[in-house]
Formats: sequence, structure tokens, C-alpha cells
Amino acid sequence: MTTETITVAPPRGMRDLLPAQVALRDWATQIILQNYGLFGFTRIETPVMEHIHLLRGGEGGENLQLIYEVLKRGEKLESELEKSSISRNDLSDLGLRFDLTVPLVRYYSNNENDLPKPLKAIQIGSVFRAESPQKGRLRQFTQCDIDIIGTKSEFAEIELIQATTKALQALGFNGFTIHINDRRFLSTLATYCGFAAERQSLVFNTLDKLDKIGMEKIREELRSEQHDEAAITKMMEFLQSYVRAQESGNTSFEEIKKLLPEAVTGEFMESLQKIIKAVESLAGDNFSIRFDPSLVRGMGYYTGAIFEIKYPGYSGSIAGGGRYDKMVGKFSKRDDVPACGFSIGFERVMDILTEKGFTPPFNAKKIAFIFDPDRDESAVVVQAANSLRDGQNVVSLQARKKDMKKQLDQLLAQGFSSYCVFKGDPNNLEVKQLEQK
Amino acid sequence: MTTETITVAPPRGMRDLLPAQVALRDWATQIILQNYGLFGFTRIETPVMEHIHLLRGGEGGENLQLIYEVLKRGEKLESELEKSSISRNDLSDLGLRFDLTVPLVRYYSNNENDLPKPLKAIQIGSVFRAESPQKGRLRQFTQCDIDIIGTKSEFAEIELIQATTKALQALGFNGFTIHINDRRFLSTLATYCGFAAERQSLVFNTLDKLDKIGMEKIREELRSEQHDEAAITKMMEFLQSYVRAQESGNTSFEEIKKLLPEAVTGEFMESLQKIIKAVESLAGDNFSIRFDPSLVRGMGYYTGAIFEIKYPGYSGSIAGGGRYDKMVGKFSKRDDVPACGFSIGFERVMDILTEKGFTPPFNAKKIAFIFDPDRDESAVVVQAANSLRDGQNVVSLQARKKDMKKQLDQLLAQGFSSYCVFKGDPNNLEVKQLEQK
Repeated sequence: MTTETITVAPPRGMRDLLPAQVALRDWATQIILQNYGLFGFTRIETPVMEHIHLLRGGEGGENLQLIYEVLKRGEKLESELEKSSISRNDLSDLGLRFDLTVPLVRYYSNNENDLPKPLKAIQIGSVFRAESPQKGRLRQFTQCDIDIIGTKSEFAEIELIQATTKALQALGFNGFTIHINDRRFLSTLATYCGFAAERQSLVFNTLDKLDKIGMEKIREELRSEQHDEAAITKMMEFLQSYVRAQESGNTSFEEIKKLLPEAVTGEFMESLQKIIKAVESLAGDNFSIRFDPSLVRGMGYYTGAIFEIKYPGYSGSIAGGGRYDKMVGKFSKRDDVPACGFSIGFERVMDILTEKGFTPPFNAKKIAFIFDPDRDESAVVVQAANSLRDGQNVVSLQARKKDMKKQLDQLLAQGFSSYCVFKGDPNNLEVKQLEQK
Repeated sequence: MTTETITVAPPRGMRDLLPAQVALRDWATQIILQNYGLFGFTRIETPVMEHIHLLRGGEGGENLQLIYEVLKRGEKLESELEKSSISRNDLSDLGLRFDLTVPLVRYYSNNENDLPKPLKAIQIGSVFRAESPQKGRLRQFTQCDIDIIGTKSEFAEIELIQATTKALQALGFNGFTIHINDRRFLSTLATYCGFAAERQSLVFNTLDKLDKIGMEKIREELRSEQHDEAAITKMMEFLQSYVRAQESGNTSFEEIKKLLPEAVTGEFMESLQKIIKAVESLAGDNFSIRFDPSLVRGMGYYTGAIFEIKYPGYSGSIAGGGRYDKMVGKFSKRDDVPACGFSIGFERVMDILTEKGFTPPFNAKKIAFIFDPDRDESAVVVQAANSLRDGQNVVSLQARKKDMKKQLDQLLAQGFSSYCVFKGDPNNLEVKQLEQK
């Protein structure tokens, strides 16, 4: 190491987490794990790195552009560099995962025989995206997913929603709304309107913006994409009736169903109804669920129900997920293996809790044990400190400083609630409150 | 994604962790955090990636050869590839951390003003080394470190040892031995024997093998390295007397001190004695500590006390650490900032627990709630299941299969302790034991 200038900031878009930040995250993680656990979900883990061809070949959508690739090593790298023309894509053999779903699907295919059926998996871990960093968009961040692999029926959706809402409530979130839709509804509606199948994903991406840009901009965008004019008109008619219904508070499943042309129907409508009815029966006054025909969600791999949770006062969503029945089958070369997942926006939730000034409950006493390193004998000091440690108390040794008043102020600022100045007699320890003056 | 063969195994040297494996690791992590917490340590986190020049410039010893480097992206990569001769080292700008100590030192320098003094940090996280994988040697593995930055006195060593032994005991480890030495002792001894200062690290690396290869091989290796013959003789004399003392059970600090030539002394002897005395006063019959003049430990950055914990019946160590007073100063360009750390060999400890057939305690009832997806109404099922979930019970929905006997056997194998077959009436739920036949 040289004595030249050393950058001590973390890499761009990544963070050093201070003790209080980790404490909040650890608390939230515990609460989430505990609540997911009640529903029989268990945590699994995959490596941070995956084979690069797996990541590139996965259905990562825009994330494929954001993969951190790991350089080949040793002879493999040398032989690439010796080639007359170097191919950029051949320089790496591993990459950092950009989500937890692609690794989960690989994991399930690799370990199927050793896993319970259905698999109810919890994953909490770091993912990596080479984004332009900005507020709320990091290059390394935590995802917190639950998935059920192997359940076809809508009980999977219901259990995922139930576990997620229970966890969010335990974190202090209430009054949120679950928006639910179904990919099969979206394509049935688009086909009915007259959009060609291969152009539908473009249409859905526009629809997804309804909340943000409003009806008129939606129409403009659909036109600028040169879709069939009659199809646009049909779609706008439906959207208009949906927005009107929303404005007059008619947001129940039955009301929205009435707005649909008769041809727009299918098994998915029953399935949606079942999910909504079951979740409503659990919601009480704490949260609500509604059919949202404009909900799309980005990823291309969804095949059925999709859902998102919105929290009043905050734009965007605090959780999102859906059913992806085709993805596992592609890895394991078998018939479709049904799969459905729900992800809490962990960083978003941490930001909201921090904005609210929330600090995790801490019941133990935090005692600073102040000793004189020049006078007190180490064996006696540690024994004495240990006698206070019994039970739950946190006891931290602190060498006495000259300005004791300043030292006590600093300890208070560090979160100590009490202190004990050691006077040499282990049988005579006085623990005092540290108080704000 | 193509339908070609897809490798579903994780990358070489990395692991998929099954639910039971994660459960063990989560349990152990909680126990460790809880026990470290009692001493006032708090968890911090750094990114998985660091600037590549920081990793390359750090004092990583052999690990510098094992860094996973992250390929530059976009224009930065293009401009490297356009150069007439491509320099291997310019292709990457980030790397995956190979330990938690280099990032900790950067972290401290970056956040010093927002951190308590001394900083008592816990770090639990993945590190990455491009090793040849083999049993017990992975390419991604978990490290579990505690460090005290800002304490000069041996109270740091004592508190680190105390917290680590308490955590190990809580994990069920007893009867282990802490071996302690001091780098300053090693260099004073080597200088006294007559080894040139710049050749001493070679000598230490050989000494470190005493346990494994024995006296004669040590002499041979020192000779083959062409050290001064008189120096070798002096060193071997001391080693001989140490081995003899060990064999006759004279392993107390006082006994070993008697073996040392008078010139081999210094402040470090007092310091070692203080640490040993204090730790002995806490050990009781559960573990022991001994001065081990042959202990070296690999890393070049140690400046004072070094220590390792050995567990009877297992070779190698289950924890290791030491004082590194110069490293922080190099980052923050200031006077030495004292620092000392202790790391539990997390993977080693997991392996031993698994070998012992240990499973973490689980007190809640795990109930499989079996319903008929064709008959039962979803809202009624989830409500009924929920009524059993109250309190701590884990309740997992399971669709009824044709062969109920087989289904119950599978549930038992998955760790369910009870089951409830839903018969349509939420007010009449019967929970039965699942029992091995």
C-alpha cells in the first residue's frame, strides 16, 4: 500500500451502512422472517455470482443491460487476450445476480429432489445493477422475496399476499392497497380491442403509466406507437369507463367487471375473484385489495396474476409480484412448473421507516463500564463488567477519559442509557442513568 | 432463453444452501450476534464490491492473487478494448472483497466522524476468492468478524476473546484452547537468534508449521532457505526446550517465560501476561488459554498480539485474529489508529455442527393444513388456517393429494410435527400429531 491518496468512499451507487442503519435493517429482517415463517416459508440462499450465460439468457428484461460481469482469470483470460480480435462478451464467465428470481429458478432445477413440494422459499440478499445511481436507485441493494413453486391454484397467490401483508403490518404499515390484475386479462382485453399479439407488450407498457400520466397522454403515446386506430379507440373507451368508475368510488370487482365487454372473460376472472374475496376476508380495516385493469408490471415472464402494494403518501409501490408458470420449465426441460412470487421493496420500506424517524425497539440496558486503564487490573475489570452483563444488559468497556463530563455526553449520543464508573471494588458497582440535560 | 442444455449447478466452488442449511446458519448467526451484542459490538456493512485499486493495494498477502475482478462497462470498456495493446489490469475497475478487514479499514476512514469511539464492529458477510475449490475451501464463503478500532490497551484483546468464547460456548463449543502469541515477541526472538530483519517473515512461516511437521522438518526447511546456521541453531534450541516443556505439561505462561533467553523481552511480555491472566479468570473449566511461541498467523499486517482457537478433535482453528495498529493509519494518513480483530471461522463451525448432527432448536408447532382445492372455498380455508396460526404456530396450506398416507409421510420428512385435515367447518378443526411409524 502506498501513502498516495486513497479513495475511502465506497464505489459509486454502493453504501457503507452505519450501526444504526444496520440495526434497523436487522430488526426489519427479523420481523419479516418471523412473519413469513408462520406461513411455512423457509429461507434459502444462492451464490451472489451465477454463470454469465445463465444471466444473459434469463428473462431479465432491461436488467440484462445492467449486469456486472466478472473477468475471466488466469489462463482462460490470457487466451482471450491473445486472440487477434477480442470479443467483449468472451472476457467474462461469471456475473453478479441482478435479481433473486433467475437464481431461484436455477436453484429449484438443481435441487428439486432435496426440496419440499411445494417449495415455499424466502430469499433475502444483495442484487447488483450497473445503473446510473440516483436517489432510491442503488447499484447494490437488498431484495426480499417469497416464492411458492409447485402450486397451480390461486391458494399460492392468497398465501403470498397474506404473508406479505402480515409482515408489512408487523413493520408498522397499515392502510395500504393491494392492486391486482392478471396478464391473461390484459391480453384478452388487447386482443378484443384488436391489437396484434406481437404488439401487445408495447401497449401494456403504456397502460402501466395511467396513474402517472393520465388518459390523454396514454392516447397520445398509443398513437405515436402507430397502433391500429380502431383498437386504440376501443381501449380508450374501456379505460375511460374504468377511470370514471374509480372517480365515483366504484372500485369493487363486481363494478369493474360490469364495465368489461362480454367477450373479455375467462378462467382468470374467477381466479381473480377468489383471490380478492379471500384477501378481503382477512383485510379488515387494515388494508384493501382492488382489481386494477391498468396494472402491468415490467417483467416479461409473468403468466397470470400480478400484484403490487401501494402505500398512501408515497409514489411507486412497496411490494410487487406475480405468477410465472413457464420459467421453471424452461430450466428443467419439463412441463410447466407453476410458480408465483411476491417481493417486498426492502430498500423502499427502509427509506420510509427512516423518513418517519422510526427506530427499532431496544429493551436491554446499554451500560458503559468506565475503568481506569492505568490503575485497574484487567482481570478484575472484566470480571466486574461481566457481573453486570448477566441477563440482557449490554456492557461495553470504556477507558476513562480526562474530561468525564464530555465522555458521558458522547456515550449518551452513542445510545448508552446507563454508566458505571469502576472504583476498584467488584462488589460495589453503582449503575447510574445517563440523561439528556 | 433457449431450450439448449442449461447448466443448473451453481458456479464451481459456490453453493446452493438448502432450507435446513440456512436454518442452521441463521440460528448460529443470531446466537453470535446476541452474544457479541452483550459486549457492545454493533453490526456494520460494507458493499460486496470495492474499488479494484484498493483491493490490489491492500495487505491481502496471497489473497491478492485470488481477487474476482469486475469488468468495466460501457464506454470505459470500449476504450480499453480499442487500445492497440490491451493491459489485463485495466479491464476492471471493481473487485469482490476477499476479506472483511480491508473494507473495514476503508469504512472506518470514510465514516470516522459518524462512528462511536472506540468502534466495536460486527461484520457478517460473504467474501470471494478464486481458489481451487476443495473440501473446506469455497470460492464464496461467510466471514464473521468483530473488531475494536481505537483502543490501544490490551482490554481490546481481552474483550474480543471474551465475546468470541462466549459466542462459541453458546453454539455448544467447550473445551477449546486459545493460543496466543505476539508478533513483537517473534521478531525480538528472531533478532536475538541472529536472523536478518528482512528474512524474518520467511522464518515465521516455517515456525507456523511446528504442529504439523514437527521439529526435524522445521530444521530442514530453515536450512533449505539458507538462513544463517548459527541463527538456526539458536532458534532450534529454544524450540526444543518449548516442545519438551509442552510434552511434560509445563504450558503456563511462567514456565514458558523461563525458557526464554533474558534478552528476549519487552513490553509485550507484560501485555501477554495481562491478557492471559484476565482470560484465565473468565475461563473456568470451559476452555483454556496458553502462550504459544510458535503461533504466527499468515497476514502481514499484524503488529502485536495474535491468537487462534483450536477445538479438540479438529485440525486447524475455529477462530483467529490479532492486532493491526498500522493499517487504519495508512488509509486515513494519520498517526497509527490502534485496531484489533477476532474472526470466527463461520464455515468451519457450521461444518463441525453439521458433522455432529446438530439441528437448531425449534419450539413452535409446524402444522400442515390440508384442504381440498376443488371443494373448499378459498376465503374459508385461509380464515380457518389463520385461526391456527395465532401465537407461534407455523401453518402451511397443503392441497390434499390422492394418497393421503404418502402425503403425510412426506410432510413428516419435511419437518412438519402436526397436521389438520380441513373438513369445511372453521369452528371444528382437529390438529393431530404426525408420527414416525
